[in-house]
Amino acid sequence: MAYQLLDGKATAQSIKDELAQKVIEIKAKGGKVPHLAAVLVGEDGASVTYVNAKVKACEQIGFGSTLIHLSADTSEEEVLATVNKLNNDPEIDGFIVQVPLPKHINEHKVVEAILPHKDVDGFHPANLGKMLLDLPTLLPATPKGMMLLLERNGIETSGKHCVVIGRSHTVGTPISVLMSRNSNPGNSTVTLCHSRTQNLAEITRQADILIVAIGREGFVSAEMVKEGAVVIDVGIHRVESSETKSGFKLKGDVLFDEVAPKCSFITPVPGGVGPMTIASLLWNTYLTNQKLV
Amino acid sequence: MAYQLLDGKATAQSIKDELAQKVIEIKAKGGKVPHLAAVLVGEDGASVTYVNAKVKACEQIGFGSTLIHLSADTSEEEVLATVNKLNNDPEIDGFIVQVPLPKHINEHKVVEAILPHKDVDGFHPANLGKMLLDLPTLLPATPKGMMLLLERNGIETSGKHCVVIGRSHTVGTPISVLMSRNSNPGNSTVTLCHSRTQNLAEITRQADILIVAIGREGFVSAEMVKEGAVVIDVGIHRVESSETKSGFKLKGDVLFDEVAPKCSFITPVPGGVGPMTIASLLWNTYLTNQKLV
Repeated sequence: MAYQLLDGKATAQSIKDELAQKVIEIKAKGGKVPHLAAVLVGEDGASVTYVNAKVKACEQIGFGSTLIHLSADTSEEEVLATVNKLNNDPEIDGFIVQVPLPKHINEHKVVEAILPHKDVDGFHPANLGKMLLDLPTLLPATPKGMMLLLERNGIETSGKHCVVIGRSHTVGTPISVLMSRNSNPGNSTVTLCHSRTQNLAEITRQADILIVAIGREGFVSAEMVKEGAVVIDVGIHRVESSETKSGFKLKGDVLFDEVAPKCSFITPVPGGVGPMTIASLLWNTYLTNQKLV
Repeated sequence: MAYQLLDGKATAQSIKDELAQKVIEIKAKGGKVPHLAAVLVGEDGASVTYVNAKVKACEQIGFGSTLIHLSADTSEEEVLATVNKLNNDPEIDGFIVQVPLPKHINEHKVVEAILPHKDVDGFHPANLGKMLLDLPTLLPATPKGMMLLLERNGIETSGKHCVVIGRSHTVGTPISVLMSRNSNPGNSTVTLCHSRTQNLAEITRQADILIVAIGREGFVSAEMVKEGAVVIDVGIHRVESSETKSGFKLKGDVLFDEVAPKCSFITPVPGGVGPMTIASLLWNTYLTNQKLV
């Protein structure tokens, strides 16, 4: 079967183009340009890469951006003081504190200190609660990115059986709520699977839409996927490879080569969900700037 | 097959007995006895019944209780002022505003005005968000009641397939989150079904645990249920009956007579989930009183 790529990179680019246009319109009206701040604590390699990508994306579309880089030994108190400063800074429309944080800092405490309407990662309990209640709010960036990816690529979700593998707070659980609620995309029958699930393949083979966010490289094989399914792969893993100059390659939770031929649509890794997470972070920043949530 | 009743009335009574004992201990230590307030706006028959049952339950176990009954034409502003007064009253540990409210009052606005740590119905977005994040919080009363019912009756949920019919904000959606998270009860594979679900019976027949909260009398028939399933019926409907003096009978969303023989456990209606909702409301009030959330 000829599958189609769910091209996150291209979809994210079209969203960024729209936002760049909105910046031009805001400027023309003499309004305040959206401004995103990112707080990075320590030198975790992946975190540095992600934060830099977010700052760069802001620059590309004309958003203001501020990177606050604190050393790994910064105290929880100082991180909270930084959050408080950003909460009260009228120039900053929204900000993120990149996770994971060093172990001596309580992540929940930091997230709860962020003003909900500046929480563009959508991790604050008040925002997640509003999501559950179908109220307008800042949705968590990665699940929202997946919803945008489905919407912008015209994938029908209503009445479909969506199976989610992985129940993380940032991805699996919120996407299961979003896909089941009465909206478009949404209105799917949703099954949430995890490490305790029995007969997993039996369940995943029922999926019209399969969302894989389990964080294990190559976990989903062809025999777990129904012919014609839409597969969204949230995983991203750096694996050694002799095929590349750098000596490594990025792979997902899905065995792409064997699964893709069974799919109607499938996300590539990289270039699938990753760019969409950044696009929805920018979108959330635009929403707060315009007071649309 | 001989089924067992999941007796909500008896389970709720044992919880109330525990709470009554705790009141005695609190008094012995000279502490403040838990106090629940309920705000009722208007004269909706079912609401009057529910609120009275809650007040009566408080009296039975030695909790303080306050009923604030406002007329149906009370303005939103006055209701919000009442909420604010209860928020600031140190005597009141927790309170509920009985829903539905008259149409001229914005329910979400009222719920969001309640201080989260006094929201013993567990409807505030901040509490629902914490639920989603697995943080200690006041859980919504009906889903929490179901969890207590499963726990107290020793029903294994880990690795089981739990199918929920109905995606309401107060029952279906939160119970789907609670049943899937890493806890006991919990750790189930959860499928959330609703009005857009296709081939519903095919899915419900896979359920080891079937939770029915669709609000349609007699919706679930025997052919939708797997042999040996645990069935929890959240529905409650007043239907005409020639068998009773009052001329009506309470029925659930499940056709009890034909479904029960296929079940390992099933809740009766009445006497199943209803009393458990009240028990968990009392439990939540105890938690706030003792500052345990």
